[in-house]
Amino acid sequence: MAKDNISRKSALEEKEGITSPETTSSASANRIKTNRKRQPSVQELVKGIINGDITALSRAITLVESTNQRHTEKANAIITACLPHSNTSKRIGITGVPGVGKSTFIEALGVYLTKKEHKVAVLAVDPSSTLSKGSILGDKTRMEDLVKDKAAFIRPSPSGNSLGGVARKTRETIILCEAAGFDTIIIETVGVGQSETAVHSMVDFFLLLKLAGAGDELQGIKRGIIEMADAIVINKADGENLKAAKSAKLEFNRALHLYPIKDSGWTPKVSLCSALEKEGIAEVWDMITDYIDHTKNNGYLEKNRSNQNLFWLLQTIDERLKSNFYNSPKIKIELKNQMQLIEEGKTTPFAAAEYLLNL
Amino acid sequence: MAKDNISRKSALEEKEGITSPETTSSASANRIKTNRKRQPSVQELVKGIINGDITALSRAITLVESTNQRHTEKANAIITACLPHSNTSKRIGITGVPGVGKSTFIEALGVYLTKKEHKVAVLAVDPSSTLSKGSILGDKTRMEDLVKDKAAFIRPSPSGNSLGGVARKTRETIILCEAAGFDTIIIETVGVGQSETAVHSMVDFFLLLKLAGAGDELQGIKRGIIEMADAIVINKADGENLKAAKSAKLEFNRALHLYPIKDSGWTPKVSLCSALEKEGIAEVWDMITDYIDHTKNNGYLEKNRSNQNLFWLLQTIDERLKSNFYNSPKIKIELKNQMQLIEEGKTTPFAAAEYLLNL
Repeated sequence: MAKDNISRKSALEEKEGITSPETTSSASANRIKTNRKRQPSVQELVKGIINGDITALSRAITLVESTNQRHTEKANAIITACLPHSNTSKRIGITGVPGVGKSTFIEALGVYLTKKEHKVAVLAVDPSSTLSKGSILGDKTRMEDLVKDKAAFIRPSPSGNSLGGVARKTRETIILCEAAGFDTIIIETVGVGQSETAVHSMVDFFLLLKLAGAGDELQGIKRGIIEMADAIVINKADGENLKAAKSAKLEFNRALHLYPIKDSGWTPKVSLCSALEKEGIAEVWDMITDYIDHTKNNGYLEKNRSNQNLFWLLQTIDERLKSNFYNSPKIKIELKNQMQLIEEGKTTPFAAAEYLLNL
Repeated sequence: MAKDNISRKSALEEKEGITSPETTSSASANRIKTNRKRQPSVQELVKGIINGDITALSRAITLVESTNQRHTEKANAIITACLPHSNTSKRIGITGVPGVGKSTFIEALGVYLTKKEHKVAVLAVDPSSTLSKGSILGDKTRMEDLVKDKAAFIRPSPSGNSLGGVARKTRETIILCEAAGFDTIIIETVGVGQSETAVHSMVDFFLLLKLAGAGDELQGIKRGIIEMADAIVINKADGENLKAAKSAKLEFNRALHLYPIKDSGWTPKVSLCSALEKEGIAEVWDMITDYIDHTKNNGYLEKNRSNQNLFWLLQTIDERLKSNFYNSPKIKIELKNQMQLIEEGKTTPFAAAEYLLNL
């Protein structure tokens, strides 16, 4: 049909056919078009979110995740309107290497909480999802029970080409979920790059899920994960694994005691659980509520959230300063030239930096 | 005397005294003044440095370390002129906690090298020196023999209010020392903040000095020091310590094998020494020359220096972008305001960053 608009030089011409089937009147066609294009307004979405409408929440998150400038503006207006209704939940970060049973654990914890009348949102930060075209939490079948649960909301990791971008979207989604009445926000991450640091900087409580005898303790120490953890939970502590899990608990307790006391005044705990058997889940939750009570009383919870805000403010500024500088076409060319001059021993990195900054 | 220039309204006036003692003729006074003020030119300093004149080298380093803009320009001209004569030495970084015997070790290694006709420069990176008003290497009496050695040049850590600044000055001093004919540059640092990372990024070989049974292995792993080390040398391996040192060697060897193979293709080594008894020093030096040969052959040495240049280029740009932004008076005020608004839940860190960047 598109070809009909091209004027034909050929003798093989076609007569124009009927452009609309007769059964569709132009009036009803227009009505369909209008309805299809009509997006809910900022006010409607905010109202929906505050009333706990999951469709409104999902739509708003889609706006937050969009790279379209118009969507971003709309998202910012929604977030600002939701801010007074946020800051109310327990924010829990959960990390662990693939295979440790994160999904099973989060499902067990989530179902346990919704049974206790909690409203649970499960989010994720996975900057690798862009590369692998997959994403954690993407496969919702891994949390079958929780997906069906009306009091739970599961959202896979946003995609993005930088951890900063992914983290920002998740952090803004927390605000929307809190405004929608979710009192417990669980944020899952895997040990990719700095994603654990990013999640640690947006939660109140950071939980490291481990297996007994996995032998990756050194990795955890090296990358500072054990240092960040408020709790280490050893999963799959059932059946034949139980003995090994108990001795791993002793070892981790010893390792944790080598670190200085945390600013929160909280001594990190090690506990056992079997997410599959739904054992030890209540104990983990009790520990989390103990921690929240403890840090609410000593003022750390509030201070920490305020520090996290400052961290994200400075982090965002730094990222943007850099991307503005390095994305300038002039700098891109001159950076190459200066690097060449450094290679040839004709300038120093410091003189080159000076030159580039003065452009 | 200065008061004589002020016109007096008071009746209590003094007659001007004799402004110059008669024994000093104005001609000789002028000569003294001219000589005192006369600073060697860039050309003179460069010529002196290339001829191995230590006074010229010291003066040029003083210009590098100065915060005076005119001095900086002069320093940059000298460095540029010295660049073709640089890049020639073995650059060795040495770190270790206070008390491990760094000065004794560096002195033993330095004296061993000058006896073998090497020319050795010893520099330092200690960003804490500004705060404590002291500095490592400041107390030259700790290296009595090396100080007297004509083939050695010892320069304490420059001071500065940022690690970046201190590191930059030391890195530029390396160029000057190399141009002055020093074939071995030893750079000392202590484990303060990120100073080890800075030194690691300006040397070919990074040596971690340890004591047996000091029990700070976890710290070394946590802070990534063990990962950076090309060698761990256990000092004070003498007398009653020898047995403990030998078992520490086994332990460190085991720990090192948990790390992946380095880009240099070099397997980090553990060795014993007693800097006080001058034992094991030759073995350390043989190891360093082995490393240099190995990395010269496989091209890593050159590639690493080139990566280091890139690192310092980007690092300097990032630091300057930030300081330019945050030192703007407008930003200083508005940053405070935005932080207040975040605290009050009226804006998000991301919206605040956006606002500040658009100012």
